[in-house]
Amino acid sequence: MKILAIEASGPVAGCAVLEDGLLIADYNVQYKKKHAQSLVPMMDEVKRMLELDLRTVDAVAIAKGPGSFTGLRIGAATAKGAAMAMDRPIIPVPTVDSIAYNLFATDSLLCPLMDARRQQVYTGIYGWSREGADPAGLHFSVLRPQCVIPVTEIIEDLNAREKSVIFMGDGVPVSREVIAQQLKVPYSFAPAHLDRQRAAAVAALAYAYWQEQGNACMVSADDFRPEYLRLAQAEQEHSERRNFSLLL
Amino acid sequence: MKILAIEASGPVAGCAVLEDGLLIADYNVQYKKKHAQSLVPMMDEVKRMLELDLRTVDAVAIAKGPGSFTGLRIGAATAKGAAMAMDRPIIPVPTVDSIAYNLFATDSLLCPLMDARRQQVYTGIYGWSREGADPAGLHFSVLRPQCVIPVTEIIEDLNAREKSVIFMGDGVPVSREVIAQQLKVPYSFAPAHLDRQRAAAVAALAYAYWQEQGNACMVSADDFRPEYLRLAQAEQEHSERRNFSLLL
Repeated sequence: MKILAIEASGPVAGCAVLEDGLLIADYNVQYKKKHAQSLVPMMDEVKRMLELDLRTVDAVAIAKGPGSFTGLRIGAATAKGAAMAMDRPIIPVPTVDSIAYNLFATDSLLCPLMDARRQQVYTGIYGWSREGADPAGLHFSVLRPQCVIPVTEIIEDLNAREKSVIFMGDGVPVSREVIAQQLKVPYSFAPAHLDRQRAAAVAALAYAYWQEQGNACMVSADDFRPEYLRLAQAEQEHSERRNFSLLL
Repeated sequence: MKILAIEASGPVAGCAVLEDGLLIADYNVQYKKKHAQSLVPMMDEVKRMLELDLRTVDAVAIAKGPGSFTGLRIGAATAKGAAMAMDRPIIPVPTVDSIAYNLFATDSLLCPLMDARRQQVYTGIYGWSREGADPAGLHFSVLRPQCVIPVTEIIEDLNAREKSVIFMGDGVPVSREVIAQQLKVPYSFAPAHLDRQRAAAVAALAYAYWQEQGNACMVSADDFRPEYLRLAQAEQEHSERRNFSLLL
């Protein structure tokens, strides 16, 4: 099973190739360049470095959102284009889940925070649990699926769970103060190499889905849609204006 | 603090750039190409993608070994060359420590295994502990410093510690059977995106050293030496032949 993974949902542009559980390439950049400028050249670079024959790729994994609207559209367009050209399916991976998946086998809860502007974060709550008698049976659990809410609401939820928590993501810097003020459980922040979107995490999570669910985790290039979790600002304003005119 | 990190100690060739605790680029390849063919082109690619002015780099971090002799020499030569040209110091990072550093905040012990051939592994034992009252005070501890020993010896050590353990590294596939037979504590294997050398982990660990120790973690390009942990096969054979001739 060879997976080509694409990450463009947030500040990171990335691509990775995972083959039968072995990560053979992973390239991520978090820089001022636009994804439209960096993503395809990065994929091309990896393709060249691996002398990758695209006909050997079995599926395209993508961080499906939420995230930056432009980023998600560029990622989706690139993934759809590649998957269509190669006649391969897409494995969509929730962005917040893939950020949490950077941390393995911790007893703490995992809480990625992506800055969603307007005093909200894209977030969710995750954890690792040991299941059954299999000594290697560690299970990644989605305890609260990805959502867009005020950071105070996720802090309330975490307080109620009474477990230590690790925060990660580009929403951390803007949330540090309110976390320090309102969070009542022990907490830490993931170090730099584990705290953002990463194409390899998207690839590894897609591979885990495939091992658990087989082809049920796949959609066709045509059917794939990014998951925005909310309307784009422009759409929201349009809808508000529309509601306003209806009131008049 | 801007760190350029280089990884060439094992099957992975990689480079990363970390600036003030933010990972801005990370590119790793684990492929049949030789490091001599891939490492510098990869660094050049990252430099181009970031429009990186090398004069803004403060230090070069490198996985100092143990590992493949050829890989370590290529890595060392590249790091020394770059550091000398930029007139910057080197931050050496023990390879086994940097592999363990892929996992954050787990309660299990961490045991990287690098295949050292001749029925030995480069290995060590690591763990995360919560220290003091600081809620974010998680500390990465070296419980057994990196060494080269038979895998059965590290298994014995782990059995004595009576804690669950996570294995990682390219020594895992060749050690799975003996682990299953002899290890008496619960264990798991790190997933693909967290189980090998990674330039970003070298960068992040170098940054942690610098935060703790300041310039004491640095050496000059001239003084830097890789840490082989044992003689190369050719040197060993030469030494054995020499001892043998002395006996005659």
